[in-house]
Amino acid sequence: MVGGSLDAFIGEVHRKAAALDSKFDLVCGAFSSNPEKSKATGKALGLNPERSYNSYIEMIETEAKLPADERMEVVSIVTPNHVHFDPARLALEHGFHVIIDKPLAFSLDEAVELKKVVDESGLILALTHTYTGYPMIKEARHYVRSGKIGEVRKIYVEYPQGWLSTPLEKDGNKQASWRTDPAKSGEGGAIGDIGTHAANLAEYVTGINISELSADVNITVKDRLLDDDSAALLRFNNGATGVLMATQIAAGEENDLKLRVYGEKGGLEWTHSDPNTLLFKPLDGPVQKLRAGTGYLSEAATLNTRTPAGHPEGYLEAFANLYVAFHRAVTDHSNGELKPLDEYDFPDVNDGVRGMAFVATMVASNKSDKKWTKFVV
Amino acid sequence: MVGGSLDAFIGEVHRKAAALDSKFDLVCGAFSSNPEKSKATGKALGLNPERSYNSYIEMIETEAKLPADERMEVVSIVTPNHVHFDPARLALEHGFHVIIDKPLAFSLDEAVELKKVVDESGLILALTHTYTGYPMIKEARHYVRSGKIGEVRKIYVEYPQGWLSTPLEKDGNKQASWRTDPAKSGEGGAIGDIGTHAANLAEYVTGINISELSADVNITVKDRLLDDDSAALLRFNNGATGVLMATQIAAGEENDLKLRVYGEKGGLEWTHSDPNTLLFKPLDGPVQKLRAGTGYLSEAATLNTRTPAGHPEGYLEAFANLYVAFHRAVTDHSNGELKPLDEYDFPDVNDGVRGMAFVATMVASNKSDKKWTKFVV
Amino acid sequence: MVGGSLDAFIGEVHRKAAALDSKFDLVCGAFSSNPEKSKATGKALGLNPERSYNSYIEMIETEAKLPADERMEVVSIVTPNHVHFDPARLALEHGFHVIIDKPLAFSLDEAVELKKVVDESGLILALTHTYTGYPMIKEARHYVRSGKIGEVRKIYVEYPQGWLSTPLEKDGNKQASWRTDPAKSGEGGAIGDIGTHAANLAEYVTGINISELSADVNITVKDRLLDDDSAALLRFNNGATGVLMATQIAAGEENDLKLRVYGEKGGLEWTHSDPNTLLFKPLDGPVQKLRAGTGYLSEAATLNTRTPAGHPEGYLEAFANLYVAFHRAVTDHSNGELKPLDEYDFPDVNDGVRGMAFVATMVASNKSDKKWTKFVV
Amino acid sequence: MVGGSLDAFIGEVHRKAAALDSKFDLVCGAFSSNPEKSKATGKALGLNPERSYNSYIEMIETEAKLPADERMEVVSIVTPNHVHFDPARLALEHGFHVIIDKPLAFSLDEAVELKKVVDESGLILALTHTYTGYPMIKEARHYVRSGKIGEVRKIYVEYPQGWLSTPLEKDGNKQASWRTDPAKSGEGGAIGDIGTHAANLAEYVTGINISELSADVNITVKDRLLDDDSAALLRFNNGATGVLMATQIAAGEENDLKLRVYGEKGGLEWTHSDPNTLLFKPLDGPVQKLRAGTGYLSEAATLNTRTPAGHPEGYLEAFANLYVAFHRAVTDHSNGELKPLDEYDFPDVNDGVRGMAFVATMVASNKSDKKWTKFVV
Repeated sequence: MVGGSLDAFIGEVHRKAAALDSKFDLVCGAFSSNPEKSKATGKALGLNPERSYNSYIEMIETEAKLPADERMEVVSIVTPNHVHFDPARLALEHGFHVIIDKPLAFSLDEAVELKKVVDESGLILALTHTYTGYPMIKEARHYVRSGKIGEVRKIYVEYPQGWLSTPLEKDGNKQASWRTDPAKSGEGGAIGDIGTHAANLAEYVTGINISELSADVNITVKDRLLDDDSAALLRFNNGATGVLMATQIAAGEENDLKLRVYGEKGGLEWTHSDPNTLLFKPLDGPVQKLRAGTGYLSEAATLNTRTPAGHPEGYLEAFANLYVAFHRAVTDHSNGELKPLDEYDFPDVNDGVRGMAFVATMVASNKSDKKWTKFVV
Repeated sequence: MVGGSLDAFIGEVHRKAAALDSKFDLVCGAFSSNPEKSKATGKALGLNPERSYNSYIEMIETEAKLPADERMEVVSIVTPNHVHFDPARLALEHGFHVIIDKPLAFSLDEAVELKKVVDESGLILALTHTYTGYPMIKEARHYVRSGKIGEVRKIYVEYPQGWLSTPLEKDGNKQASWRTDPAKSGEGGAIGDIGTHAANLAEYVTGINISELSADVNITVKDRLLDDDSAALLRFNNGATGVLMATQIAAGEENDLKLRVYGEKGGLEWTHSDPNTLLFKPLDGPVQKLRAGTGYLSEAATLNTRTPAGHPEGYLEAFANLYVAFHRAVTDHSNGELKPLDEYDFPDVNDGVRGMAFVATMVASNKSDKKWTKFVV
Repeated sequence: MVGGSLDAFIGEVHRKAAALDSKFDLVCGAFSSNPEKSKATGKALGLNPERSYNSYIEMIETEAKLPADERMEVVSIVTPNHVHFDPARLALEHGFHVIIDKPLAFSLDEAVELKKVVDESGLILALTHTYTGYPMIKEARHYVRSGKIGEVRKIYVEYPQGWLSTPLEKDGNKQASWRTDPAKSGEGGAIGDIGTHAANLAEYVTGINISELSADVNITVKDRLLDDDSAALLRFNNGATGVLMATQIAAGEENDLKLRVYGEKGGLEWTHSDPNTLLFKPLDGPVQKLRAGTGYLSEAATLNTRTPAGHPEGYLEAFANLYVAFHRAVTDHSNGELKPLDEYDFPDVNDGVRGMAFVATMVASNKSDKKWTKFVV
Repeated sequence: MVGGSLDAFIGEVHRKAAALDSKFDLVCGAFSSNPEKSKATGKALGLNPERSYNSYIEMIETEAKLPADERMEVVSIVTPNHVHFDPARLALEHGFHVIIDKPLAFSLDEAVELKKVVDESGLILALTHTYTGYPMIKEARHYVRSGKIGEVRKIYVEYPQGWLSTPLEKDGNKQASWRTDPAKSGEGGAIGDIGTHAANLAEYVTGINISELSADVNITVKDRLLDDDSAALLRFNNGATGVLMATQIAAGEENDLKLRVYGEKGGLEWTHSDPNTLLFKPLDGPVQKLRAGTGYLSEAATLNTRTPAGHPEGYLEAFANLYVAFHRAVTDHSNGELKPLDEYDFPDVNDGVRGMAFVATMVASNKSDKKWTKFVV
């Protein structure tokens, strides 16, 4: 693992997600750019002290020299955005598969470059767009694919948070500090941190792509250096339209990513505050509450569920579903049986490139006085 | 009453709303441009047959000649948009107060002209933006005014309906037919029918005004003549931003107008499917479910509630609240004690003009390739 | 109208419910045992002063002498329980139909006696068990009747209120005072005030009857004179079992009557806080949200709805539905075309007798150390 | 681990719960009474084949002989009820701590006997009443303890499931088969399987105990051998009253354990379908939605939360919280620093004994024609 010291957030999420299904063991780490902190984290996690490394370079180079059955199998990168590209490339160049937190990189250029590295390596890179791991998101995708709502016409996706309503970054809040720092996050604040999740979810579920957008990207809190609020009108490549909202200054909101998709024959609604439910709204009949763990769901939903209906699963389980899918691919790769990546159903480097293109397009549109800006990858 | 024959929708709503609190009696009507239909409606409603008129012109002119204590007191106009201006002007010119369904008129020009007539007459015109009549909308406005959420930063208002997902107007559906007919509705379809409600609600609750917007207005159903879907990025005159969505092709949706307002210190959320609840989301404490009929609400909310907490009131009661407020103003006018209209708290001709300006601005923005279009009244 | 002075609660509810659909006009009243209060109420309501009577006796006797086309048509009785029987009997004996607030009478004996008077008179008595007037309650009944959930096995009905959590009756609260006074309410407090609603709703929807019960009836607030809390295990005449809960000391609760019915093939759930929704829970498929005003509902539900889906109706509309049904029967009676009462679908004197038997059975069971007490009418 | 072969339900839940926080590793197991099945399970789980045992006796005896730093540390028992007591006793007698699925044993006698064994051993036994592991249940308990709702007056606890609405046990459904078999479950069906959860939750949150009850326990599905439905009126040792409902024939219900507690000053509501929310209903103010992961919660709630507000945790996390608390106690025990068990806050053998007494009391009350039956441990 690269990053994820004890005071970080997403590192511990990765560790628990990887542990839940006992597919991966944490064997080594470079948990911080501060070697002491890295060591302390490794100790607290019960690692062999020799495998708590001073840097990711040391980790990757040292592990690569271990016998095949002893060395780490994959690298999990959980650092802020500016430390995604280098460790990912290094890991791939040393033959390690990579699972990396979103957004993929610091910039679109980095993302495109990383895609080349992945493609050349023949190795696997998974990107943790967590929300695609939820079983009812799988079901929503199944509903669209199988034509139950007809041709998609309208998409609303919103991601309201309120935690950056005040200048937390000035009070030493670690999560706020790097996310609002252009040197660490890149050119996107909220649009990178949560906007990419929203865009990815909309495209993942519907199977259509944003083709152009009209964005309003704002810095709301005084003296903040990156956007904390955004909205965009969307056009999709099948003619559908949509609205995306991603904000971190919706005071009082937690983390309620919500997707609504309307087609010719019905609508779908999913919201993160009730993730085990998918609402199916047929044109002429009663709304149906589809529920995780029931017997009437698609294979993809069932595959991503551990417990029977009425036993709620949550964020860590969705996250773990990505690790499980990544594990399947890694295992097949080891066995020389790798199938096309789509069949494993986890976000990969292509999603990562689209995410960075989303950030770039939002920024470009915001600067433009033209209504529509093309989404170009 | 002008319009509202037996097969209409909103006329009966007006009648029940007016009847609920026994402030007004229906005494006469020109219920249809078809005299026989008008007569039949009057009969079914138990009117004196002599006061079921063949036309609104006949009605207004005849009633005006009756002795003061016999003639009608106010005129309620519930026709499609193209028959708003003429009867309203005629009524005002003959000394009758007017209560009229939204939008105010067929065009912005008509609206501006009607405002002049109202102003010159010294009479009262009320516009039935129903949703402002809900007690928890009054409470939301009170929360904003009294500073409980701080300066407003972000507004999301959405009005999803699904009933026009198919070309109903081709099957003789009366409601669909005039609403999709530019000769009857004016230049706005969904944006006039429901978009004006959404814009009005946002401005009413927050007390700030839309200053410019960027609109995407669509005809989704093939061969339809007016828009059935729209969205807009909004900018307000205090620097706040927002998003407005108004669609009639969200298959499976009913009529769920929803408003979310976020300020520096907290957020508010109200949704038409649970109208007796207002969520207050303070920045750092638990969300509070404010409920109609409780003892802790503002005077304005309490004034617009009839029943104790837990006895749901709905659409007709909200509608009736407008009639009650209108009645207060009419009574004070009769007594020569009319106060400034704001104190009666019902939508008036100025709201109507802003509504028509909203439609015009949405249409103009949609045609423009500039991102932002000024909202000019 | 008998009772319903300006400071009462349910009288104004009856007036608005009767006014909503313009089926009845309020023409006279004995609004209080205090003649001055009665006069003042009549004046405020705009009545002819001569028809604001000093007592219900005066009202009934005077009106009975008026010409048929001038005198009142029906009597609405909205007094506390101890003033139900006498005015109802007197009205019936003078040829007036009666609509009366629940519970029917002060005691089971009075109720049985009143039933005799009704039966002998050939006139109509309606009892305002409001909740049976909701369209989705009609739909629930339709679902049971048409076999969609199979044979009923289990019924949960609960009516939690919190407003009597403190000794309000000692602070001069009028509503609390008579409800906790055995001289005015009879032998039941919460069980009469709200328990009868719960029992009636369960029987109305399912079409089966309570055959025995095991009750725990409590006085929770110190020095209170009547029960403020109760629960009972139920057995029904088809072999189903159930639980009834009716309490007024559930601090923080409003008025959320809730019914759940489970049969062999599915379940139904309705709750007063969201009255326009009925949940249908099939054994093996997704829960369906049935909604008032939609096109897929039964005739009975549709008949009791005024507005399209998504335009919430509430307590007053449900109440008004009882007045409308009562009006149908009264009209048919006047025309000599009265059909069997069941076809009008409003609670009548038989429901009233069962309600009083419910109170008596709850009290008897509570005193008994036997587990089960027969429900005898 | 004892039990939990690949086709079992709760064994895999225990494994994931134990794995999530990386406190325990699965090192050995006797996963089935069928040695081949046990071996196959061990293999699938990646165990050393030598440590997949043929029986729990072999496992416990063999492991006990291993060096202290190699042998298993605790035994997890996840078998049907009739195989709880013997392996638990054997494990304790060989010096192993035990974590065991509920209910504790096959009978009250066994439970009492097991308590003796635990007490004599000085070792730790944890019982997986999962629902007590939820952070918002911890918060509810904190609210009661800290007096925020005042003295508890009324408790409603319900556990509706629908999965046994049909005779699944006749179709070879493994979960249904043992749960409806008195030889495996003991004298309680639904009352043991889910009723014990409900009773435990009510007592855990409120800190008061059931002192007597009046039960109605039913076999609803024809030819079933154990109860599938139950309800009881409850009396608590502080004078509060309550109602408990536990059924497995509520067709269409999933697994929605729900607790409502009302005190003099307010109420609390928690429901398993939205486990990260606790509703606090003060007597006179708006309902507050307390949410997991927020900054305003008690230490106990925070300690049992892994993710920030808005990142839902679920059943496995609640389960894992029990394992974490058990781990704390085991660690302290190993270090000779064991504190009183209450401080670790997990269900223990005393809860297990009360659970079995609950089953016995329900059965006794159901057979009795007396209204109230004492709850005796």
